[in-house]
Amino acid sequence: MTRGIKLRSRPVGWPDAGVFELAELPVTPLDAGQVRVRNLFMSVDPYMRGRMNEGKSYVPPFQVGELLDGGAVGEVVESRADGLPVGELVLHDRGWREEAVVDAARARAVRPPEGISPSAYLGVLGMPGLTAYVGLLDVAGFQEGDAVFVSGAAGAVGSLVGQIARLRGASRVVGSAGSEEKVRYLTEQLGFDAAFNYKTDRPLTEQLRSAAPDGIDVYFDNVGGDHLAAAIDCLHDHGRAALCGAISGYNETEQPPGPGNLFKIVTKRLTLRGFIVGDHAARMPDMINEMGDWLRTGAIRFDETVVEGIENAPEAFLGMLRGENRGKMIVKLA
Amino acid sequence: MTRGIKLRSRPVGWPDAGVFELAELPVTPLDAGQVRVRNLFMSVDPYMRGRMNEGKSYVPPFQVGELLDGGAVGEVVESRADGLPVGELVLHDRGWREEAVVDAARARAVRPPEGISPSAYLGVLGMPGLTAYVGLLDVAGFQEGDAVFVSGAAGAVGSLVGQIARLRGASRVVGSAGSEEKVRYLTEQLGFDAAFNYKTDRPLTEQLRSAAPDGIDVYFDNVGGDHLAAAIDCLHDHGRAALCGAISGYNETEQPPGPGNLFKIVTKRLTLRGFIVGDHAARMPDMINEMGDWLRTGAIRFDETVVEGIENAPEAFLGMLRGENRGKMIVKLA
Repeated sequence: MTRGIKLRSRPVGWPDAGVFELAELPVTPLDAGQVRVRNLFMSVDPYMRGRMNEGKSYVPPFQVGELLDGGAVGEVVESRADGLPVGELVLHDRGWREEAVVDAARARAVRPPEGISPSAYLGVLGMPGLTAYVGLLDVAGFQEGDAVFVSGAAGAVGSLVGQIARLRGASRVVGSAGSEEKVRYLTEQLGFDAAFNYKTDRPLTEQLRSAAPDGIDVYFDNVGGDHLAAAIDCLHDHGRAALCGAISGYNETEQPPGPGNLFKIVTKRLTLRGFIVGDHAARMPDMINEMGDWLRTGAIRFDETVVEGIENAPEAFLGMLRGENRGKMIVKLA
Repeated sequence: MTRGIKLRSRPVGWPDAGVFELAELPVTPLDAGQVRVRNLFMSVDPYMRGRMNEGKSYVPPFQVGELLDGGAVGEVVESRADGLPVGELVLHDRGWREEAVVDAARARAVRPPEGISPSAYLGVLGMPGLTAYVGLLDVAGFQEGDAVFVSGAAGAVGSLVGQIARLRGASRVVGSAGSEEKVRYLTEQLGFDAAFNYKTDRPLTEQLRSAAPDGIDVYFDNVGGDHLAAAIDCLHDHGRAALCGAISGYNETEQPPGPGNLFKIVTKRLTLRGFIVGDHAARMPDMINEMGDWLRTGAIRFDETVVEGIENAPEAFLGMLRGENRGKMIVKLA
C-alpha cells in the first residue's frame, strides 16, 4: 500500500483541511510504456486552488473523491518503458501521492547539476522558473533599463522575476510582500532595490510611489485587485503589465470590483496581457540554459519552504495560500 | 471682428452650455510663416471633454478664459507662408473659431477627392478614421476571420471600425449603440451582422452573447465600464481588446469601480491595450490610401451629423456627449 491525497469536497471560499482526505492506495501493476515512480518532492502551487472549483478554467477541475495531482520529481523504481530505466530521476505531473504510475510520455528525465536538489525542477528550473522568465521577458517585453515592479515578490515566481530583472539590467526592481520579514528578505537577500509590506493600512499606490519614485515600466502581477490599480497608477506611458495570477481573489466567493482607474490604460497607452505558462513550453530550454548558468555561478538565489510527509501536503498547500512560504513551497516525500 | 468659443469655467461632471462663452475676437495681423484660415468645418470630439478638466492628460488642458481648439478644415484667405497660397484648403488644429491664424507648420493642405466634402478630413479621412484603422488593425491585431465587437458603434470611430472589419474579412461584426434607431442603422445601413441597444435593462453580457453566440476575437472599446466587462466575458482565449476611450466615464466625478472579471484576462490569456491616435500618425498615408479607395467605390459609408454656426458648437459638443450624433458630429461654419 501507498498513500495519496484525495479531494473530499469542493471548497467554497477559503479551503480548510476538511476538503482533503489522506487515502491508502493499492499498488497496481504497470502497463507497457509505464514506469512506477517513488516521489521525492511534490509541488503545491496557487493555480491548484482554481482546479478545486467546478467548471472549466484553463486546466480541467479536480474531481471529488479522486486523487489530486500536480508537479512532482521522483525516482523510477520499476519500469516497463524504454529509455526510463530504474534509478532514473523524472519530472512528471502525478504528485499528491507517494508512489505514482506514470506514462513514459508524460515523464521527463532530469539530471540536476551538482549541488542542486531535484526539487529545483519544481521551482527555479521548472514551471515557476518558466513563468517568471517568459512573463517578464516575452509577455511584458522587458528591456534593459526598465524599472520593474513585481507583486507577491517573496513567492516562487515573484522572487525569480525580480532577480531575472536585476540580472538582465533593470534600472530598478521593486517588490511587494505580505510581511516585514519578507520585505527584508527581498532587499537584503534577493537584491531588490526597494520593497514594501502590502498588509498595512497605507494605500498601495502611495507605497509603490515611495518605492519607485520615478515610476515603473513593467509590472508583473501575481496578486490582482488593488495591486493592479496601484501599478496602473505608477506605470509610465507605454508601460506593460504581465498578468500571471490573482491570488488575492482565488478564495473569494464573489469577485470584488476591479480597479477604478482603468481609463488610464488608454491615456497612458498601457498594455495588459494575461498568460498561462503552459502556452510557453517552447521556451523551457532557453530558460533552463540561462537560469542554470545563474544558479551555477550563484548569481540567482532560490529558496524553498519544505514541509515533510504526504500527510502534511494539505497544510503546505493552505500555508502557501496564506502566504507562509518564502520562495517555493515544496513537500518532501521520501 | 470674428467669433470663437471660450471656456468660461471648468465643468464638474456633465457640462452644460454655461461652461462655454461665445466671444468676439479681433482680427490680428499675421506673422511671417502664418496663414489666415476661414474655417469651413470644425470638429467636436469626445477627447475634448478630458481637456476641460484641470491637470495633465495626454493632451494639455484647455485654459479658462481662453479659446478652445480642435480639428478644423478651412480655406486660406491671407497668406504669409510659402506653399500655402490664398484659396488652399487646409486641415489644422485651430477650430472653435470662425477665422484662425495658423502657423504653416501646423497646417496641412488637403485636396478632397471628387464628391467628398472637405469635412471628411475631420472624420473618415482624419483622426477618427485613423483611430478606427490603427486601433483595429495595429493595436488589436485584427486578422481575417476574426469576430469583432465594437462599442459605441454608431459614432464616428465605431461606425468605421465595424466597416473596416467587414471589408477586411471579419467572420462576424457586432456593435452596441444607445438607441433602437442606431441599432437599425448599424445592421441595415452599415452591414453589421448584429447590434444591440445598451440603454436597456438587459445585462450587456447577455446581449453580447446573443449577438455573438460563438464569442469574439477582438473588442474595440469606445465606452469602457460595463462594456469592457461584457467583452472580457465573451472574448475567446487569446482575444485582444483595443481600448480607445471610455466615454461612459468622461463626465463622472468619481471613477466607478472596474469590471469584477479581470481574472479572466489571465485564464483566457487576453491582451488589453490602450492607445492614443496621435502615436500612430505614421499610418495616416496607409489609412487615407485604403479608406480613400473604399470611399470612391462606395464600399464604406460615412455619415455626419451637421450643426450650423459657431454659436451652436457648444450644443453640438454636448449633443455628441449625450450620443445624439450618428457618425461624425460636425459644425459647419461658413
